Amino acid sequence: MPLDIRVLDNGTVTSPKGFKAGAVYSGLKTPGPGKTDLGMLVSDTPAKTAATFSQNSILSPSVTTSRESLDKGRNKRAIVVNSGNANCAVGEPGFKDALEVVSLAANHIGVDPSDVLVCSTGVIGVELPMGLIRAHMNKIEFSEDGGSDLANAIITTDTLLKQKAVSIDVGGSTVTIGGISKGSGMIHPNMATMLAFMSTDANVEQEFLSVTLSEAVNISFNLVSVDTDQSTNDTCILMANGAAGNAEIAAGTPEGELFAAAVTDVATHLAREMARDGEGATKLIESTVTGAHTVEDARVAARSIVASPLVKTAVYGRDPNWGRILMALGKTSIPLDESKIQVFINDIQIVEGGAAIPYHVESVVQALGRPEVYLRVALNVGDGDATAWGCDLTEEYVVFNSAYTT
Amino acid sequence: MPLDIRVLDNGTVTSPKGFKAGAVYSGLKTPGPGKTDLGMLVSDTPAKTAATFSQNSILSPSVTTSRESLDKGRNKRAIVVNSGNANCAVGEPGFKDALEVVSLAANHIGVDPSDVLVCSTGVIGVELPMGLIRAHMNKIEFSEDGGSDLANAIITTDTLLKQKAVSIDVGGSTVTIGGISKGSGMIHPNMATMLAFMSTDANVEQEFLSVTLSEAVNISFNLVSVDTDQSTNDTCILMANGAAGNAEIAAGTPEGELFAAAVTDVATHLAREMARDGEGATKLIESTVTGAHTVEDARVAARSIVASPLVKTAVYGRDPNWGRILMALGKTSIPLDESKIQVFINDIQIVEGGAAIPYHVESVVQALGRPEVYLRVALNVGDGDATAWGCDLTEEYVVFNSAYTT
Repeated sequence: MPLDIRVLDNGTVTSPKGFKAGAVYSGLKTPGPGKTDLGMLVSDTPAKTAATFSQNSILSPSVTTSRESLDKGRNKRAIVVNSGNANCAVGEPGFKDALEVVSLAANHIGVDPSDVLVCSTGVIGVELPMGLIRAHMNKIEFSEDGGSDLANAIITTDTLLKQKAVSIDVGGSTVTIGGISKGSGMIHPNMATMLAFMSTDANVEQEFLSVTLSEAVNISFNLVSVDTDQSTNDTCILMANGAAGNAEIAAGTPEGELFAAAVTDVATHLAREMARDGEGATKLIESTVTGAHTVEDARVAARSIVASPLVKTAVYGRDPNWGRILMALGKTSIPLDESKIQVFINDIQIVEGGAAIPYHVESVVQALGRPEVYLRVALNVGDGDATAWGCDLTEEYVVFNSAYTT
Repeated sequence: MPLDIRVLDNGTVTSPKGFKAGAVYSGLKTPGPGKTDLGMLVSDTPAKTAATFSQNSILSPSVTTSRESLDKGRNKRAIVVNSGNANCAVGEPGFKDALEVVSLAANHIGVDPSDVLVCSTGVIGVELPMGLIRAHMNKIEFSEDGGSDLANAIITTDTLLKQKAVSIDVGGSTVTIGGISKGSGMIHPNMATMLAFMSTDANVEQEFLSVTLSEAVNISFNLVSVDTDQSTNDTCILMANGAAGNAEIAAGTPEGELFAAAVTDVATHLAREMARDGEGATKLIESTVTGAHTVEDARVAARSIVASPLVKTAVYGRDPNWGRILMALGKTSIPLDESKIQVFINDIQIVEGGAAIPYHVESVVQALGRPEVYLRVALNVGDGDATAWGCDLTEEYVVFNSAYTT
């Protein structure tokens, strides 16, 4: 029986019970209609919290501060986030400022600073203008449908809001899981930062929550590539406040399986939308590798294909240059048997036994012209499967990121 | 005392004694003025030969055939090379064709097929048109200054011929080392293939020759990135025929040190020129990382910086967005101490202790406008140094690689 996961209309990070959000414009971003740049997600009660952070050796003090806060205690009340400034590579002031942002946010909602996590996204190497943040933090107003406002506050040059919520039944209680994310974008030309905030009203065991988030991130956000550059500020946080009143969800149960599937569903949606909205992108590319020796091999290969500039430009140009798919697969050095490889583009088979078969070229060209392009490689040497998401590489990406603005 | 390495005017792969080369147009490339696509490098006598090949899991049968030939014997007489077709991902015919190309070439110069190596570069997934190769192999004519003709035959859309030769003195004998290479380019939109052929008239011990080539490749070709995509056909071959008449050069001697430095000099020149001539490039980017914990850390970091699309677009746009340099450094996850980092652009220091210092922005913008841009990061945590080469990322790269041609 398929798992029963229901998608909510207009679902967002405040769809689960007991979560509110709000945002204001503080002047960190260049001004514009409807722009906001400072916001908070608040749980009415302490929420069990799990998070994953960037693996970059250079980390924003906002990341370090949140990571240290979680090391001291996993129950959190809020996340405060600013866009327009990454608070990164600014020396000691970055740590002082991150702590002050946490204090200002905690003070605004009347909780202890240890209850608040902090995230930043934007230009690297410029100190946070704390005067602006001090002047505007207390102006944030919260509402139970403020999730979209927060989704709007964290974006930079993203062209789409990324949000979703789903509901599941857990022992008679309705449990909801919601999330928002931002992808690639910039005010000043700057690296993309991935931020994702997820919430749930589930009552769920803490360790299982952490494992669920890690596993969901591994097969969603960690399988997206827009331009191979890893941000110093990447953060994904999942807060569970138990407001649904369900019996605690634990690992190794049918409820646990359903909950993990629902979290993964939301994470995968947010990840996919980030890829679709990559800088300058005109198309989503979904790459599936099946039959690898291991799942990890399949993940590495699927991501290599969507990350390859030559695959991305071929998809942009509707060029059925499938040799590039094999190149991108092979450059991972995963073990394979070339004579067993099959390649499909939007379900049209073009390669059998590692070599071209007589396919109808024009139908492949037309498939490559669609807004979603599916590349599938069957390795047929094992049972490791994975899917990764990316986007095409266009002149617009270059223009975006080379604009000289100083 | 600095090593005495003399650069030859118009030096090429036939500058060392006892090497000849020639090339013809066989119809593999689209026709054009002065175009050739099938050529050979020939040593008058058996030459000790060393080679390095692509690490891609998908390999051209031309690569596999050459590798197997070298496993059976290290003395070679010739390299036969075609451009316009990679002889890759075509199934069993690829192996048969590679062996036939070797036989045709061996027959043309009257040697055994086991004396001949084969290389291919061009579109993947299309069988070699053997009829054209059979019809034209015997038309190749050789000359002692044919190196440039061969350099011309192996390029695809490269805009520059890449060649160099240097001489050194070894115990009273003049030893010359020459080389040619091709970089990124395509006839049909296709992945870049790196081919480099080097020759020397040195009498040199076989094992030392192999080690010298590996070490030279590690700090030259292996530190170049045009677009992060690794070809299925990459090959670098060094042939040493002993025609200089010097006493055999061995490891651990001053002559060995001088010879290795000269080989590295030629390899580095060819590598640098490949980066400068990257698809769509307007600038060479040279990235130097000093003071890493290990040399390997420094190499990984230096290459990550020149390979980052966000660094490459910033250099293209003359945007002194140094945060991207730190991001590209950090995404390698090498150990570092952020508070010790210094960053220089063309010798202008812009970062001290991991944070910006008040630098003259306009002078950095002007530096970024020069045809060669030098990025230097001092980590100050060890004594590992390395330099890597790349190029800027421009709209032209996207146009090149997205042109729909089928």
